[in-house]
Amino acid sequence: MEMREKLAERTKAVEAVVEQYLPKEAGHQKTIFEAMNYSVRAGGKRLRPMLMQETYRLFGGTGAEIEPFMAAIEMIHTSSLVHDDLPCMDNDELRRGLPTTWVKFGYDMAVLAGDALMIYAFETAAKAFAMTAQTERVGQAVGVLAQKTGIYGMIGGQVVDVELTDKPIPEDKLEFIYRLKTGALLEASMMIGAILGGACAAEIAKVEEMAACIGLAFQIQDDILDVTGTAEQIGKPVLSDEKNHKTTYVTLHGVEQAHRDVEQVSQDAIACLRELPGENPFLEALIQMLVTREK
Amino acid sequence: MEMREKLAERTKAVEAVVEQYLPKEAGHQKTIFEAMNYSVRAGGKRLRPMLMQETYRLFGGTGAEIEPFMAAIEMIHTSSLVHDDLPCMDNDELRRGLPTTWVKFGYDMAVLAGDALMIYAFETAAKAFAMTAQTERVGQAVGVLAQKTGIYGMIGGQVVDVELTDKPIPEDKLEFIYRLKTGALLEASMMIGAILGGACAAEIAKVEEMAACIGLAFQIQDDILDVTGTAEQIGKPVLSDEKNHKTTYVTLHGVEQAHRDVEQVSQDAIACLRELPGENPFLEALIQMLVTREK
Repeated sequence: MEMREKLAERTKAVEAVVEQYLPKEAGHQKTIFEAMNYSVRAGGKRLRPMLMQETYRLFGGTGAEIEPFMAAIEMIHTSSLVHDDLPCMDNDELRRGLPTTWVKFGYDMAVLAGDALMIYAFETAAKAFAMTAQTERVGQAVGVLAQKTGIYGMIGGQVVDVELTDKPIPEDKLEFIYRLKTGALLEASMMIGAILGGACAAEIAKVEEMAACIGLAFQIQDDILDVTGTAEQIGKPVLSDEKNHKTTYVTLHGVEQAHRDVEQVSQDAIACLRELPGENPFLEALIQMLVTREK
Repeated sequence: MEMREKLAERTKAVEAVVEQYLPKEAGHQKTIFEAMNYSVRAGGKRLRPMLMQETYRLFGGTGAEIEPFMAAIEMIHTSSLVHDDLPCMDNDELRRGLPTTWVKFGYDMAVLAGDALMIYAFETAAKAFAMTAQTERVGQAVGVLAQKTGIYGMIGGQVVDVELTDKPIPEDKLEFIYRLKTGALLEASMMIGAILGGACAAEIAKVEEMAACIGLAFQIQDDILDVTGTAEQIGKPVLSDEKNHKTTYVTLHGVEQAHRDVEQVSQDAIACLRELPGENPFLEALIQMLVTREK
């Protein structure tokens, strides 16, 4: 089977897991359930829960306690998109060709839907306590989920990004934004897979390093594609960063250096993977695909 | 010492605990730390963490693992106020005489500050895993924190309240809103105190019932004070509910029935407390004060 087919199959399997943990659309608060589920179902390739599950498998994990965490990371990722799209933030009306949550359900309900997804992620993750005797691992995973999502993770990156909108971004802050805004959730995903799979502290640290490399490579590649890709390939107008005078890795370092760096960081990620015990050829292929993607 | 003085003293002690867990205002994401801390520091009597700690003491708890949860419940309570005040929600510019978070830090930063407080509450609570050998209790407490805060708790009540703004509210929905929007966080506070204090399942259920009664009594009393209190007593214009054609317990049942019901529900709360093992005279006095308060 080709990687593309395999990926489509895994995406479907991961989606079925996430779907299981979505709230039933019934009761007085039905509207929020609809808004939450609408937002999650509009999602893409489900890379975060997929990376989580594959890392769990790499360490030999076979239990079901990974599943609530897979749903949780997707809920948190979705919550950040719902709030990012709000009029007071990016003011986006479309995402993946569908009306954004605030357009569909109203501004107030979109604020609440983002909040609800954030909290429900933790409610969902906490279900894992009853699914394994390894409650300490679950506790550690909940801690990582919060750390990498919060002010020293995703939201921290988001804050700096919002503050620098329409301003030139110095190099250290751009790396900070990339590391936190994009990287932190990938780190959480893979670290939680490792923790629940029984990895030791040194292995968890290696997984964190690997995920950080993947996040950075992914982000640099994004900036390169904005310059070199076609609108069809990347699904948005090309050179949109340049037109918006946005500081990117490419505007700071040039496209050739960016190419070299994405190559280096990708190799670092694969090197980390190979230092880890266990084998997961699909995970390796997935990482390769992510960092060298052309759209 | 009079109850008023005792309360002031305990509020100060609880504030010192909460303060310990607030983020340091340093680093690239400084603005969000400032917005979070500004919002939390603008708070009132710290009743939720106080009720949590006193319930913990009722069950003989003496450890420090209650402290991160005390900070967490106050962060979540604050996050809901920050988002409630947003222009797309209640559009409030003042809270306790201070500019609300969105007025002070901007609309986008207030959305992010609410998000940040919500997630940081879980990051903070997760610190308790390293503070006690009773990790299962901590896991259960994290689960309760999420449940009572989320779509089947505080946010669920908020959603129904927002949907019924400027509309007549049927009796069952009003009770639903009161139970969830006001009651759920009190239930979380006291249940977490009981769980970490080592209460058994039946005791935790009794504590939940007690907290629900306190929440309902508190809320009915609020509606009564809007009709019978002076502006000075309640710190906002009297009859504001009536002027806004807002459905309240008093508009549905009349002020006399409301008085009788608050009395009954308060007695139920005290009866629950007396059925529990252990003694905590301050907790009993605190509950009495909450349900019979005149402001």
